[in-house]
Amino acid sequence: DLAAGRAKAEQVCAACHKIDGNSDNPQYPVLAGQHADYLRRALHDYRNGSRNNGVMLPYAQALSRTDIDNVSAWFASQPSRLVSRP
Amino acid sequence: DLAAGRAKAEQVCAACHKIDGNSDNPQYPVLAGQHADYLRRALHDYRNGSRNNGVMLPYAQALSRTDIDNVSAWFASQPSRLVSRP
Repeated sequence: DLAAGRAKAEQVCAACHKIDGNSDNPQYPVLAGQHADYLRRALHDYRNGSRNNGVMLPYAQALSRTDIDNVSAWFASQPSRLVSRP
Repeated sequence: DLAAGRAKAEQVCAACHKIDGNSDNPQYPVLAGQHADYLRRALHDYRNGSRNNGVMLPYAQALSRTDIDNVSAWFASQPSRLVSRP
């Protein structure tokens, strides 16, 4: 659900990752265009602590399983800020 | 050193991430266009175990500090497979 994903991303993710996932701060990875399955896995791993990251833990724990599906779909749908080679 | 980064990426990273970092397998994140600083940090964290990942550990430990700088610069320089919105 992209609309729900965008709304949740606005609440939880956008302050660091930007609403379209094209962070310009090298502290934060670019999420735009990343595989949805990879983003979902990362969020579950942050949430259950198997990926040990103190910054991401509280944000991941603020997300339900459905939220994780939705925000992952949202960022995967966003074009990266980069253009393809001609 | 992009040329050295490309050569090392071919040896160590490309089998999963593709030489330009545009993996089409959702098990592996897209590295193309990711921030070099973020990639460098991730590789150091995998190498020292603070990011606990059994798949990445041996690859990260196969890289020197200079290799990490170089492959991070290489993948950061590669355009994402995605095009920007018009």
